[in-house]
Amino acid sequence: MDTAYRPTPRTTPTRYRERARYDRETVHRILDEALICHLGYISAGRPVVLPTTHARHEETLYVHGSTGSGPMLAARAAPSRLPVCVTATLVDGLVLARSATHHSLNFRSVVVLGAARLVDDQAEKLRAMRALLDHIRPGRSADCRTPNARELAATAMLALDLVEVSAKVRSGGPVDDPEDAALPHWAGVVPLRLTPGTPEPADDLDPATPLPPYL
Amino acid sequence: MDTAYRPTPRTTPTRYRERARYDRETVHRILDEALICHLGYISAGRPVVLPTTHARHEETLYVHGSTGSGPMLAARAAPSRLPVCVTATLVDGLVLARSATHHSLNFRSVVVLGAARLVDDQAEKLRAMRALLDHIRPGRSADCRTPNARELAATAMLALDLVEVSAKVRSGGPVDDPEDAALPHWAGVVPLRLTPGTPEPADDLDPATPLPPYL
Repeated sequence: MDTAYRPTPRTTPTRYRERARYDRETVHRILDEALICHLGYISAGRPVVLPTTHARHEETLYVHGSTGSGPMLAARAAPSRLPVCVTATLVDGLVLARSATHHSLNFRSVVVLGAARLVDDQAEKLRAMRALLDHIRPGRSADCRTPNARELAATAMLALDLVEVSAKVRSGGPVDDPEDAALPHWAGVVPLRLTPGTPEPADDLDPATPLPPYL
Repeated sequence: MDTAYRPTPRTTPTRYRERARYDRETVHRILDEALICHLGYISAGRPVVLPTTHARHEETLYVHGSTGSGPMLAARAAPSRLPVCVTATLVDGLVLARSATHHSLNFRSVVVLGAARLVDDQAEKLRAMRALLDHIRPGRSADCRTPNARELAATAMLALDLVEVSAKVRSGGPVDDPEDAALPHWAGVVPLRLTPGTPEPADDLDPATPLPPYL
């Protein structure tokens, strides 16, 4: 397998081309770190974007839903596969420049284009659910009750092959115009990080239950 | 003005209706806290979702772009306004349940549906840019060099009226089935927060430049 995704006209940015990345390692790392994605699809001729959870299994991206949700109903109604765009974005920092126009954010994002299929196979659905659990925290899928047949049936899952894929990465400090360098405004980066706080046990949790190592 | 947005068929969820919110205060707070949004539009009949920055000014949402970017070219080519969906999501915590199926995330999201217009008026564009800067950190627009005419011309801005809008909020602990309560798995919430780190001055910043109070 190639180490990189092949750029297409739709995954070649019209601006800031130097920020584009196609190597699988960068793409996988962003998809695996992002806790949510935004799923775009067309409903009655209009674009709809909804946040949801996802997990990658090798070169397949699974996107979670419930059977009655909008995108899953749209996928069920689609003649074959549902055209989607799945985008995951990590915000890494505020970039403050001396000039208004050069302000920016440091970020890493992945855009996956394609046609999603509804997962019907029960074994695949279960594998996708496990991937979603281990995406929350590696090891969690082995430390909870496995879904039963009724629960599996009530869960809908879209699968999207990672084929038409690109990442975009902006990092580093502000890039001001040389004539602005002496302006008195502070310039630099404020790093941002999604930080976990102290785990809060459920109200009815037996206090003897130990906090698992993966938390 | 009503204190709440009026629900429409498109902003009424098919699932988890108790999570829907329409009051302006909740919607505004989420839009104002979220550093980025995901802009969905249709390009050549297919959905596209791109991350970008936004800012709210009263009941108008401004979405930032550059004149050569995909959505801005699409807006320029649109006969009147460009149908879009703008979604902003804040992740507040991991929700770990005893059963696989009740795992979730705590989150707050806003979905704005509508037809966006390109901002052509220079005064409005400047106001939108100021809103974007103050969205990064309140007070920043007064502490940087104002854009000149060339920079303003190179910046594209979409404006979207906040009319067809809904928020969705999931908070609190896991909701396990009663028969799972005695299972030995840890259950609860891991709070998550986007946390700022120590500001990193630009390489060429005069070390005498003080860190502004808003940072």
